[in-house]
Amino acid sequence: MTKGDETRSAVLGSALSLASSVGLEGLTIGKLAEHVGMSKSGLFAHFSSKENLQVAVLEEAIARFVTLVVSPALKQPRGEPRVRALFENWLAWSRADFLPGGCIFVVAGVELDDRPGPARDRLMASLKDWVDAIAHAARIAVEEKHFRADLDCDQLAHETFSIAYGYHFLRTVFAPADAERRTQTAFERLLLDARAPRP
Amino acid sequence: MTKGDETRSAVLGSALSLASSVGLEGLTIGKLAEHVGMSKSGLFAHFSSKENLQVAVLEEAIARFVTLVVSPALKQPRGEPRVRALFENWLAWSRADFLPGGCIFVVAGVELDDRPGPARDRLMASLKDWVDAIAHAARIAVEEKHFRADLDCDQLAHETFSIAYGYHFLRTVFAPADAERRTQTAFERLLLDARAPRP
Repeated sequence: MTKGDETRSAVLGSALSLASSVGLEGLTIGKLAEHVGMSKSGLFAHFSSKENLQVAVLEEAIARFVTLVVSPALKQPRGEPRVRALFENWLAWSRADFLPGGCIFVVAGVELDDRPGPARDRLMASLKDWVDAIAHAARIAVEEKHFRADLDCDQLAHETFSIAYGYHFLRTVFAPADAERRTQTAFERLLLDARAPRP
Repeated sequence: MTKGDETRSAVLGSALSLASSVGLEGLTIGKLAEHVGMSKSGLFAHFSSKENLQVAVLEEAIARFVTLVVSPALKQPRGEPRVRALFENWLAWSRADFLPGGCIFVVAGVELDDRPGPARDRLMASLKDWVDAIAHAARIAVEEKHFRADLDCDQLAHETFSIAYGYHFLRTVFAPADAERRTQTAFERLLLDARAPRP
């Protein structure tokens, strides 16, 4: 990495944490400059507009999500263990230290759903990819005969998404340990329904 | 209603719609004044601070939620029909014309989860009440022998919450009709698991 790349990477890490709390819309170049102790003009040189900064923060978040959630799960055995790892890693992601205000994709989803533009497009495409990745892992679990042959894998992916999104909210309303227990129970019920009958 | 009450009520309706799009944090007295065509000083006379305005908007949202979601469901027969009505009315709420940016409780939940204060307290208490109301309706369904005697009604309430919250997001990522079909399927699976065995 060049010096410029290093600076950019460090700034994006701070920007991601800040956006988790104040939102992508609240993440102004002025506020970020204050947060990282750089000049506004220095940041403009890197990102040139708030919209570019938003897209860059989403790219950073997606890269970290792949590193922390997707890649380790893909190292798990094909089938149910991999589906389970995708889910468990996702819950752990919501609790990451660098996301003090919770999952950036939930925060950005609420903000951007009615604001067309490159940031919204990038977010929606990555959420579609993510639901597809879960459905794909479920299809492999059907091939491996862990899950039943008539399972609707896209439905399972949607329900996994809802359970994990619900967790994000429920842990702010109820005691986090209770919310996690409820969330795990919901996921186990989903897996139980998906599993192939014992031969 | 006095003239003052009428004005306040009309302003709160506009504030609720605006907050659905820009968030409770984005809802400044200045922006609201512009939106409703009143003076900032006139609005200050009604709400005196942004924090009071946020709490008043939440109270307005809760009152409408009770009128549109809870009360009509309580007129349904005790048991599964009432549980189902709570859920169906909730999905319809997410699509209400006066919530152009989607469910205000989702929007506010993301914003307020890490901002202690009266608005957060009011929101969290009302979300707890709501999960409790679903669990209570499920307990009645157990009494009516629509649901099985060993059902964990709090778990059912948490899962209903996750399914409905997931819907809020999935309808912005996928075609709304597809998201609704997936959501309904998830809820039917939950009911199927909850139902008492046929005698």
